[in-house]
Amino acid sequence: MTQPRVVTFLGPRGTFTEAALEQVPGLEHAERVPVANVAEALTAVAEGRSDAAMIAIENSIEGGVTAAQDALAATPGLRIISEHVVSVNFSLVAPVGTALDDIRVVAAHPVAWAQCSGWLQRELPGRAHLPAASNVTAAAELADGPAQAALSTPTIGHWVEGLEVLADRIGDNPDAVTRFLFVGRVAEVGEPTGADKTSVVVELPADKAGMLLDMLEQFATRGVNLSLIQSRPIGDRLGRYRFVMDADGHIRDERVADALLGLKRFSPRVVFLGSYPRADGQRIEVERRYSNASFEEARDWLRGLLAGEPE
Amino acid sequence: MTQPRVVTFLGPRGTFTEAALEQVPGLEHAERVPVANVAEALTAVAEGRSDAAMIAIENSIEGGVTAAQDALAATPGLRIISEHVVSVNFSLVAPVGTALDDIRVVAAHPVAWAQCSGWLQRELPGRAHLPAASNVTAAAELADGPAQAALSTPTIGHWVEGLEVLADRIGDNPDAVTRFLFVGRVAEVGEPTGADKTSVVVELPADKAGMLLDMLEQFATRGVNLSLIQSRPIGDRLGRYRFVMDADGHIRDERVADALLGLKRFSPRVVFLGSYPRADGQRIEVERRYSNASFEEARDWLRGLLAGEPE
Amino acid sequence: MTQPRVVTFLGPRGTFTEAALEQVPGLEHAERVPVANVAEALTAVAEGRSDAAMIAIENSIEGGVTAAQDALAATPGLRIISEHVVSVNFSLVAPVGTALDDIRVVAAHPVAWAQCSGWLQRELPGRAHLPAASNVTAAAELADGPAQAALSTPTIGHWVEGLEVLADRIGDNPDAVTRFLFVGRVAEVGEPTGADKTSVVVELPADKAGMLLDMLEQFATRGVNLSLIQSRPIGDRLGRYRFVMDADGHIRDERVADALLGLKRFSPRVVFLGSYPRADGQRIEVERRYSNASFEEARDWLRGLLAGEPE
Amino acid sequence: MTQPRVVTFLGPRGTFTEAALEQVPGLEHAERVPVANVAEALTAVAEGRSDAAMIAIENSIEGGVTAAQDALAATPGLRIISEHVVSVNFSLVAPVGTALDDIRVVAAHPVAWAQCSGWLQRELPGRAHLPAASNVTAAAELADGPAQAALSTPTIGHWVEGLEVLADRIGDNPDAVTRFLFVGRVAEVGEPTGADKTSVVVELPADKAGMLLDMLEQFATRGVNLSLIQSRPIGDRLGRYRFVMDADGHIRDERVADALLGLKRFSPRVVFLGSYPRADGQRIEVERRYSNASFEEARDWLRGLLAGEPE
Repeated sequence: MTQPRVVTFLGPRGTFTEAALEQVPGLEHAERVPVANVAEALTAVAEGRSDAAMIAIENSIEGGVTAAQDALAATPGLRIISEHVVSVNFSLVAPVGTALDDIRVVAAHPVAWAQCSGWLQRELPGRAHLPAASNVTAAAELADGPAQAALSTPTIGHWVEGLEVLADRIGDNPDAVTRFLFVGRVAEVGEPTGADKTSVVVELPADKAGMLLDMLEQFATRGVNLSLIQSRPIGDRLGRYRFVMDADGHIRDERVADALLGLKRFSPRVVFLGSYPRADGQRIEVERRYSNASFEEARDWLRGLLAGEPE
Repeated sequence: MTQPRVVTFLGPRGTFTEAALEQVPGLEHAERVPVANVAEALTAVAEGRSDAAMIAIENSIEGGVTAAQDALAATPGLRIISEHVVSVNFSLVAPVGTALDDIRVVAAHPVAWAQCSGWLQRELPGRAHLPAASNVTAAAELADGPAQAALSTPTIGHWVEGLEVLADRIGDNPDAVTRFLFVGRVAEVGEPTGADKTSVVVELPADKAGMLLDMLEQFATRGVNLSLIQSRPIGDRLGRYRFVMDADGHIRDERVADALLGLKRFSPRVVFLGSYPRADGQRIEVERRYSNASFEEARDWLRGLLAGEPE
Repeated sequence: MTQPRVVTFLGPRGTFTEAALEQVPGLEHAERVPVANVAEALTAVAEGRSDAAMIAIENSIEGGVTAAQDALAATPGLRIISEHVVSVNFSLVAPVGTALDDIRVVAAHPVAWAQCSGWLQRELPGRAHLPAASNVTAAAELADGPAQAALSTPTIGHWVEGLEVLADRIGDNPDAVTRFLFVGRVAEVGEPTGADKTSVVVELPADKAGMLLDMLEQFATRGVNLSLIQSRPIGDRLGRYRFVMDADGHIRDERVADALLGLKRFSPRVVFLGSYPRADGQRIEVERRYSNASFEEARDWLRGLLAGEPE
Repeated sequence: MTQPRVVTFLGPRGTFTEAALEQVPGLEHAERVPVANVAEALTAVAEGRSDAAMIAIENSIEGGVTAAQDALAATPGLRIISEHVVSVNFSLVAPVGTALDDIRVVAAHPVAWAQCSGWLQRELPGRAHLPAASNVTAAAELADGPAQAALSTPTIGHWVEGLEVLADRIGDNPDAVTRFLFVGRVAEVGEPTGADKTSVVVELPADKAGMLLDMLEQFATRGVNLSLIQSRPIGDRLGRYRFVMDADGHIRDERVADALLGLKRFSPRVVFLGSYPRADGQRIEVERRYSNASFEEARDWLRGLLAGEPE
């Protein structure tokens, strides 16, 4: 893929989503366009106004998982390029020189306020909440009052000057992360790295017990493990579902390709969202019988059978 | 179940969650306690400070699906009592006498602002956004300025006086609904209605391809259909998953009870969240071989075999 | 079971089938009635003219496997009591004083003649074959000529006097065994020994790919291993099959009983042929989750769920 | 395949096995060599002394099913060419002019004697049995006494002169058939006819519940139906099995080829015995998703995905 020149993301600037963009190499000179929601970010890519989009896909505080999954399934022409994990920490920031005792009003995005409620009750009980449209504006508007401090991201110093961090990692869950996907347009599939993930959306052919099982057997009979499965109502009528799934491995791995072929024959609709390196870099180990070599040997054997060669 | 005297819900008052509470019969005299997040709502129930909680579980604009699912799985001693679906409409409200042309600033919860972006761009382009902590406060604080209108719920008139609705159903998706669960403490399981749902959280015994399949076979071999399946990382270490599932039927239906027994023997941890009437009232039809009668006949047959009765 | 007073077997006396009868304790005073074929042996039991029958079921030289399986499936009111394995050896016998060089004609059942063809070609090339109706009559009629020797069973000395064994274990496969079943009438099922086998005949509900799989899942989801599976055309019309299966374990083992319940609900016809000790005495080891304890714990858990007990 | 010049069959001449040979076109000038058992018939082919062999494989009265299956699995270098079904009828034959009342001794192969026991008890009660080595010799040796009639095959007139048929179709089961296989050496696989069968022998990788299921899923996930499955102990140690299976379809059908590839990767040993026309000529109908077209479309789709073509 050539380097993107324009990328969209769920704005405003300074959010965790933009922090995820920092993990993508080669975007130094790209124009970064904040948009209002995930569907808009993806549509811009599909329609060519943007080259790629960064969207939160799991454990997000900035937008629903399911909204992002539905938008990915509904927007044609997209491919996931890479996966990124951002540690979701909150910091209490204030203009240089502010003491905790000075604080009577805290500006915060409502979700951030909720996620820090434990720390706030312990350390700043009874303070008022000034809702802000984002973690960034909460900090940026401190100069204009009426808040004396803001809940923001640890990197807010890159965006707003004159602030200092009064307390760090004050979220109720210090290990919280958000998983993001960097999504571009359909293009030739790259080479596997050995630590890859493949995302698909698959519709079931009919709504009856056992169909889900039939679908998952397409993966299991090829030794392909799933790290995510989520049912989503298709929405056209009651009781029809599509499944959003992440499988271990790359479409250029024989076992994954074979599972995709099985899915394609089975399902009225399969959307391939992409094969891309896993954020955790964990290599996929498979039994011998699911290796590329095993697939090649089986094909050679079949060819020999057809030709009548001695075994 | 005796009528709850205290119920918790994700506040503040006037949200869609409280609208869901309106669907529960017998709460006329119950005290309604708004809380800051789903986990707090459920913990209050588990610890006896509240008798039941209403939480958004799917397609929510007021909190993540996965947060609610994780909280349900992590809080012991709970049982789902009933399921409720609320149409998620937004209205533009303003003090009586306000015209569209008068509006320069719109107060709105950030999520509501995003969900109405299409209508706002068409009808009120370029207006400023005053972030509010909830759909209710957005409307309630209109009197104090600086906003001239607010995005709020259609029922805001119940809570705030002197407002009128300038535009109705202005959300980008007019059919949007949120699914809610009304959750109480563990109690004797009620009788099936024929249109029931059973929710469980199940951990897989090991992370390998095929284990998920083994789990789902527990349902499929008993003809139990799943209307929701979602993998959730357990969080203790990489690659371990629990599955949140909604199955058609009631724990007092033989096929569902049998599937639960199979799950229990299979899984290191099964959390039964409850069997309860479906919001859509749709009756579950099963093949003869999965009926209660079929289970009873099979047991009679087995008993006859053991006793040596002629077939 | 009370001791049988009359037992039927595939005659004549002195065959391997009667040798299998020697393995059954308590038959010292029983009347042994030879019959012409397996179906007759079983019908005599079903109709009460006999108390039990010994039939060859696998690797038999005295009648087909499938004939015996079909007869078991077609005759109602039977139960397998025990399983027996008999080493199938042949001996060359002749009147006392006969030398190998004296032999010009060998009396033999045609199957015995075929099974010893290697030895005969090496040691007695070119000798004539006098067909006999059984291994016993071959030896018994030596006195009447024209044969000088007979192929017979090693135990023929119990039945015919004045013979000596010229060569022992002359069958082409010295390890050949035949598996026999001792079959009585339906009676109360006994207790498991820990090394048991359960035999069933199951019809598939419809002829389509996947039905066989559905049936076998009834065993696999309960951890029940199969040591024999054989498809047999039902015979009423093309393409319908029944399956003869031997499962590890006893109907009084919870996992086996549960699998039988599943089969019964699934199949238009299940014939339970019996649970009985394995001839090889090999104990069945199962994973914890398929143990009786695991089934009992799951039932206790379910009972607690229904009653609303804290987990 | 060029026409066989030498064919082996389970002798002697005139048996039902030779009747099966009559069904094979182009054998008019072939030398027909009777042999003593199935293994010898197949070994002769494998070693080049014969070009093809006819063996009974199911419901045989002339040798065990399992012996033939084991010999097929154990002899390398073979391929099934075609399948044949022969109606197994018995006739009572005697020299021209013989009346039923003249008969005091009946010559018969012991198996034929057993299979006609019902008719004999009704029509010729109390007659003596002279055992014969085959249905043919029973009739051929009538001239030499002491028997006045013989149980033989309906076609015995082709082999022995001066006989007439006193009674026809006197076997206890008038619909009895034997299924035969015509087996040659490994050669290039022919084209499918649309009514084909594929035979394989497959070893399981390990002896545990679920492995059999995994193997059968290789067929079921490709919509391939099985018309025969039979477990056979491998014999090297206890509890290891191979499975003899007949699948609907031809190795040149995509779904069958794909299932074979899956088996090959799964199993430590797969023996392909051949794809050949079914004796019953019944065409195999498959759902659209298992058709050759479906496999080709899926491959085109995958190729497009890899190349980055728009869907």
